[in-house]
Amino acid sequence: MAAKTAFEHAYAVIMAGGSGTRFWPLSRRRRPKQLLRLHGPKTLLEQTLDRIARIIPPSRTFVFTGAPILREVRRALPRVPPSQIIAEPAARNTAPALGLAAHEVLGRDPEAIMVVLPSDHVITRTREFLRTLEAACLWASSEGRSVVVGLKPTRPDSGYGYVRKGGRVARVAGRVIYQVEKFTEKPNERLARRYLVTGRYLWNGGMFVWRAATLLKNLERFQPRMAKGLAAIARAGGARAVRTFRRLYPRLEKVSIDYALMEKISDAFVVPADLGWSDVGSWAVVYELRKKDAQGNVRPPASLLFDAQGNMVYSPGKFVLALGVENLAVIETEDALLVCPLALAQSVGRAVEELGRRGFGRLM
Amino acid sequence: MAAKTAFEHAYAVIMAGGSGTRFWPLSRRRRPKQLLRLHGPKTLLEQTLDRIARIIPPSRTFVFTGAPILREVRRALPRVPPSQIIAEPAARNTAPALGLAAHEVLGRDPEAIMVVLPSDHVITRTREFLRTLEAACLWASSEGRSVVVGLKPTRPDSGYGYVRKGGRVARVAGRVIYQVEKFTEKPNERLARRYLVTGRYLWNGGMFVWRAATLLKNLERFQPRMAKGLAAIARAGGARAVRTFRRLYPRLEKVSIDYALMEKISDAFVVPADLGWSDVGSWAVVYELRKKDAQGNVRPPASLLFDAQGNMVYSPGKFVLALGVENLAVIETEDALLVCPLALAQSVGRAVEELGRRGFGRLM
Repeated sequence: MAAKTAFEHAYAVIMAGGSGTRFWPLSRRRRPKQLLRLHGPKTLLEQTLDRIARIIPPSRTFVFTGAPILREVRRALPRVPPSQIIAEPAARNTAPALGLAAHEVLGRDPEAIMVVLPSDHVITRTREFLRTLEAACLWASSEGRSVVVGLKPTRPDSGYGYVRKGGRVARVAGRVIYQVEKFTEKPNERLARRYLVTGRYLWNGGMFVWRAATLLKNLERFQPRMAKGLAAIARAGGARAVRTFRRLYPRLEKVSIDYALMEKISDAFVVPADLGWSDVGSWAVVYELRKKDAQGNVRPPASLLFDAQGNMVYSPGKFVLALGVENLAVIETEDALLVCPLALAQSVGRAVEELGRRGFGRLM
Repeated sequence: MAAKTAFEHAYAVIMAGGSGTRFWPLSRRRRPKQLLRLHGPKTLLEQTLDRIARIIPPSRTFVFTGAPILREVRRALPRVPPSQIIAEPAARNTAPALGLAAHEVLGRDPEAIMVVLPSDHVITRTREFLRTLEAACLWASSEGRSVVVGLKPTRPDSGYGYVRKGGRVARVAGRVIYQVEKFTEKPNERLARRYLVTGRYLWNGGMFVWRAATLLKNLERFQPRMAKGLAAIARAGGARAVRTFRRLYPRLEKVSIDYALMEKISDAFVVPADLGWSDVGSWAVVYELRKKDAQGNVRPPASLLFDAQGNMVYSPGKFVLALGVENLAVIETEDALLVCPLALAQSVGRAVEELGRRGFGRLM
């Protein structure tokens, strides 16, 4: 479906370093969200690869993750060459990883275009997603341009960063490209409602497209110290490569690409898109995404619910009987059980942080 | 503590045939309430034996139970001779079992006094319990007298049978004996409230004392058919004994001793007692009996509860995290999980009945 010219220099860079606790007890330090089957039979990470593999082959796909889950990530993505699944020696947020990815792909292809994708989001409109990337790659193939996918907001969410679109600059592959007027941090609720009303604000879902050379140039300009460190890591070859990587990478500034660059550069563009996107932020979101019974319950086949409505029951190993409960999350794994109103699902992460302090760190 | 004369002819008859589902998922068809550790480290059945063993030795204790749990009951009560732990070939309620017990103990001691005790109740005031039985045994040692322990009601409960006390007839071992004016079935709630106000009504907790000979005489008079069947079972000795028991017992009338006799005889007496008694009718009662944390939660050590009050959490095998839930029962076993408001705990039994009809009979 996509023109060969759009993707022939494209490299996918999948960011799989996340380590959330919001899906505890299903998610753990060593089993973060991207490794969970929250939506469909495959993990979110596998779905991310499947989606992008339709236009960029796994041989041109890089995955950045953390050392504790490297083996699991490699096992989940057998089509990606293991050497392209890279464990960061320390979590430094997205900017250092993307700088390193730029060096890697530039070594292979001076024309390389990077397609940056989070690994733990749901996208239900794959065709629209691929078309959007086609437009972004075509537009970003000119030097100097950085493109962000701007997700059309469906509610006044104060949990996301927003992109304010400026003037329309082109129509590419059926998609409209806008200048980015401004990247904004998470707004408060009042502001988020205003953002939604104006129609000028889009969610920043962490999907970027740019030439690797453009990224490196921008890093040199706006993050010269980081650029230097990255260059040193990239230069070190042979036996010294791994040692240098392990020594220098943890010293790089811990900063997101949004903050390090996107908010600073002038040649930023946004492609608005409606992708059926969700960052699956809590059990409440999983509840929304899943199929429900006639009483609005998400529940396993081995369960009986009486006078129960709007509950999210996850219990792969155990029969569940529930009576007279409403809008409750009941999440069961081999060693732990979570019970809380779905309305409080966003607090689960904070509660789990307490586990360590109360002597239950092994359960985190 | 008790005079030897009160108990020298006493035989304990423990009724352990119950098979409830109100404590599902902890209780199952093959693990009824009396085999659960609902109150303290021992099962209710073990506690029953421990209590009575202080005045009646296990060698003079008989236990009636159902075939499916015979092995478990014998294992739980190693001090009771296995031949005195008897599995009914079919559940016939209490009257036939007690008639059979009467024949058994009469065979050993023509003066035998039966002390009939349920196996699945909680009694916290053991000393008071033993004193009450002392008075009952002394009073019942005269032929013809049947004594019921009358529990002082603490609330207008419509779930129990009541005994209306008549005239005071004696003071024995520091306890007052009253004529029974009437046994009444479970009242409605309005009536239960009136019962409580009058102060003349006591709960019938299924604890009886009488001479074995007295019971058999009463059965011959009021249940002649049953008495005949029981006599035939008792007569059959040697190799035929078991066969006769299995053949005849299931044909005996299925009826409680209350209905078969107590409501009909004239020489019934009641000893009022305040025993810290509970029949532990549901998870809500277990919640009331147990120690609670500062927020009124009953919970295992391996748990964290935030903004949670008045919950009953039972989860021996699993860590539990609960947020923002109130007055909930969360009960977890190896293969099943129950979640329901404590206020609905009395409906658990009815809900479990549905398991069979919905294809989950193996979980009953």
